[in-house]
Amino acid sequence: MTQGVAKDFSYLYSDETKGRTPSQLKTIIHYFSDPNLIFLGGGLPMSDYFPWDNLSVESPLPPFKNGIGAKPSGESSDTCHVSITKDLKESQAGIDIPLARSLQYGHSKGQPEVMKFFKDHHEMIHDMQYEDWDICATVGNTGAWESTLRIFCNRGDSILAEEFAFSSSISAAEAQGVTLCPVPLDEHGIIPSKLEEVLDNWAAGVPKPKLLYTVPTGQNPTGSSLSFDRKKEIYRIAQKHDFIIVEDEPYYFLQMEKYEKDPSKRVEKSYSNHKEFIDSLEKSFVSIDVEGRVIRMDSLSKVLAPGTRFGWIIGSKDILLQYLRLQEMTIQAPGGFTQSIIAGTLNRWGQEGYIDWLIGLRHEYTKKRDYCIDALHKYLPNVDFITVNPPIAGMFFTVDIDASKHPEFTTTYKSDPKLVEKAIFDKAIASGVLVVPGNWFKVESLTNGKQPEGFVKPAESSVIFFRGTYAAVPLEKMAEGLHRFGDSLYEEFQISR
Amino acid sequence: MTQGVAKDFSYLYSDETKGRTPSQLKTIIHYFSDPNLIFLGGGLPMSDYFPWDNLSVESPLPPFKNGIGAKPSGESSDTCHVSITKDLKESQAGIDIPLARSLQYGHSKGQPEVMKFFKDHHEMIHDMQYEDWDICATVGNTGAWESTLRIFCNRGDSILAEEFAFSSSISAAEAQGVTLCPVPLDEHGIIPSKLEEVLDNWAAGVPKPKLLYTVPTGQNPTGSSLSFDRKKEIYRIAQKHDFIIVEDEPYYFLQMEKYEKDPSKRVEKSYSNHKEFIDSLEKSFVSIDVEGRVIRMDSLSKVLAPGTRFGWIIGSKDILLQYLRLQEMTIQAPGGFTQSIIAGTLNRWGQEGYIDWLIGLRHEYTKKRDYCIDALHKYLPNVDFITVNPPIAGMFFTVDIDASKHPEFTTTYKSDPKLVEKAIFDKAIASGVLVVPGNWFKVESLTNGKQPEGFVKPAESSVIFFRGTYAAVPLEKMAEGLHRFGDSLYEEFQISR
Repeated sequence: MTQGVAKDFSYLYSDETKGRTPSQLKTIIHYFSDPNLIFLGGGLPMSDYFPWDNLSVESPLPPFKNGIGAKPSGESSDTCHVSITKDLKESQAGIDIPLARSLQYGHSKGQPEVMKFFKDHHEMIHDMQYEDWDICATVGNTGAWESTLRIFCNRGDSILAEEFAFSSSISAAEAQGVTLCPVPLDEHGIIPSKLEEVLDNWAAGVPKPKLLYTVPTGQNPTGSSLSFDRKKEIYRIAQKHDFIIVEDEPYYFLQMEKYEKDPSKRVEKSYSNHKEFIDSLEKSFVSIDVEGRVIRMDSLSKVLAPGTRFGWIIGSKDILLQYLRLQEMTIQAPGGFTQSIIAGTLNRWGQEGYIDWLIGLRHEYTKKRDYCIDALHKYLPNVDFITVNPPIAGMFFTVDIDASKHPEFTTTYKSDPKLVEKAIFDKAIASGVLVVPGNWFKVESLTNGKQPEGFVKPAESSVIFFRGTYAAVPLEKMAEGLHRFGDSLYEEFQISR
Repeated sequence: MTQGVAKDFSYLYSDETKGRTPSQLKTIIHYFSDPNLIFLGGGLPMSDYFPWDNLSVESPLPPFKNGIGAKPSGESSDTCHVSITKDLKESQAGIDIPLARSLQYGHSKGQPEVMKFFKDHHEMIHDMQYEDWDICATVGNTGAWESTLRIFCNRGDSILAEEFAFSSSISAAEAQGVTLCPVPLDEHGIIPSKLEEVLDNWAAGVPKPKLLYTVPTGQNPTGSSLSFDRKKEIYRIAQKHDFIIVEDEPYYFLQMEKYEKDPSKRVEKSYSNHKEFIDSLEKSFVSIDVEGRVIRMDSLSKVLAPGTRFGWIIGSKDILLQYLRLQEMTIQAPGGFTQSIIAGTLNRWGQEGYIDWLIGLRHEYTKKRDYCIDALHKYLPNVDFITVNPPIAGMFFTVDIDASKHPEFTTTYKSDPKLVEKAIFDKAIASGVLVVPGNWFKVESLTNGKQPEGFVKPAESSVIFFRGTYAAVPLEKMAEGLHRFGDSLYEEFQISR
């Protein structure tokens, strides 16, 4: 299939991006590898003075037969031994990043051995529809998102975000003076028709939003996931109203089967081959993108470990060059130890081994999700104004509660759902469990309701929700926590058992 | 001695800093460690699913008898073995950061085991003059400086910088729309009287600069170092004209004895004790600071390895809190592997062992500097219009050249020193050596001469300079490079031998 090239979106860049001139110093870096030239140009310490050598680390070995949480024995049958020297042994070429290189300056886009792995991985999972796309290393999606704001937005610009969104992402925009327009959600995420309505009715003369920030899979905090059909609709609207879609996808590989209430009907999903697993994954925005309008942010935080501080962005070469230029002035590059260890581990696991890991991860989270939803059904009052929402991806469940059903709604709580929410939160804390009030993620509350002129806000409702996680604690502890939460609701709403 | 507390400098903060509201989510983090509470509040993966365990790495062992570049044998007599498990063994408490913690979210200020080491180290080296100072981890000084600009400056604000400065630092300010005012330098760095003149004559009504950005030790690119007396003068001027001093100190421990031209008179400096070494170091700006007006940025890049992507800031608690809040939205924290490895290594070396390393580093760089300056004297034309500047710190030497002495200065080069500079650069490249034209670091050129109204620019001169390094290449290769550079000058200036 002949593919096109990305559109030029540079007219959407911020003044900062437009004003960022590559320094002359960077223009000479190609001389660095010229064997006939003695390069006295840069302040690089010699690797002779790096104190570290013979780094080694163990991990389990694919196919992780006893589950990804099983401790490897140390034997070569189930243990992957990574050993990285300061200078490269010939046998390690293409696999390991020697410490002399990973601990040196350079490679702001990420070291080749690690970026090749994730580029190949990306191509296994996503269908790219244009030619000049690229990959760039990051220190995780938090930083990548903050950089995205710097690259596109001036103070006073506006962006679109899900009505309830991760507060840190929203605060980053807020601090930069960017106005947030909340987009209505239902249990399946952004409602395309509502998004279109918002934009079709945009006040004349007010600049349109430059970006849509979305967590399409296992959305934080609602736990919802966008279907491929909705994504296609949203992409069409993005083209119509000319904004960039930023898909923040830390939970992409925490997709699961739908929750099945009857345990006897549950089957642990197995895949006859990896293609079947890959096909089972919801298609991404970047797979639809024919013109470089989507920026995809992936991260190892939820898949391997947050402290790797490693992720990557996929997007058009032109746009990624702006990340690179910003990165050269900020983080320079992800840490060298991290890159050596990730490359050493994943290049030994191989692409198929990494898929084995991701399948194992899916099993673990499905188990935890099921246990959690079972416990919620068991411990929460079975009344029509309390709804448990079993997610199909991610780390979070939500419980919707119609605050107007509180016996003291119109009296003690003055018909204000937020006051009921606060009372439930306090009661849960007093009972020894912490779940987070949905209102804490409400874009409108986080931004004090500042929106562009004429902007149509999502409708108010008496339904409040709480976000909890099944990721962070072991099963029994989680069940005990949900028991306590259930008790708080029984008490607060004066429901008899 | 009774110490005061830091002054409140919040009136100097940027709109962004003033608009950064801590999210409610952060307010609940203290519940996380409450043993009676089940915390279902955060999307933290369980460390059971982190694949890595049994990380180990080797380094040489203090006192580094055979020099810091000597490869350790692997035996315990000269080799430091660091071994870090996922869960902490009791014997490692206070020394190692278990991977279960370093690879998890949290600790945006840096892990306690590593920050305690650098805090103690800082107190050994610097005299703090106020009580409420603090330390915060960074991913290195490049990022820390970029963050400093975000914390203090709005578009249109101005700052002071050395007349010639590291281009990346200048470009970061330029991109953010911050105006740079170059401060005149001589071979010893910023000239306090000139700085004062600039500020005393500041145009009425134009807001004064908020920051002074300086690399006091082994300045990049000039190689100059500020004496303690000049620092005291500059601090007085900072108080008078109310700006913050940002001391960017990657080269602080690359201080050396003065260059001695006669090799027979050179003695390898040895210290009878560590105090003698510490006393030999030039005192820092932060040691003068009585009111939290100085922000000090330290980095491991030149001392251990750039790829650690680790550094730290010292400043008042109030100001550091702003870095932390920004950091929580950007990098979150330095990498976990890096922190585990740094803590594991340095806590085994101990404070005294680390000083041994720094003394060893000084020896290596002194040797390289001496070899380099000797070679420059040997290979460069011995004429009065070419001056070699032997540095007393850092990685860089400079060679001053009076461009007006070029035989074709008024003809081919139209009396423009920059054109002579370009011709020398090209000739050197053609001869197989790269040294960097000083003009590439000139703040005025880098910023297209934008300065606040009425600002008095440093005087123009026909003297150009080139920056080279003795850090990046082995001795023989360096000598060959300088030989080639010398030949280019002989040719270009048509000097007979």
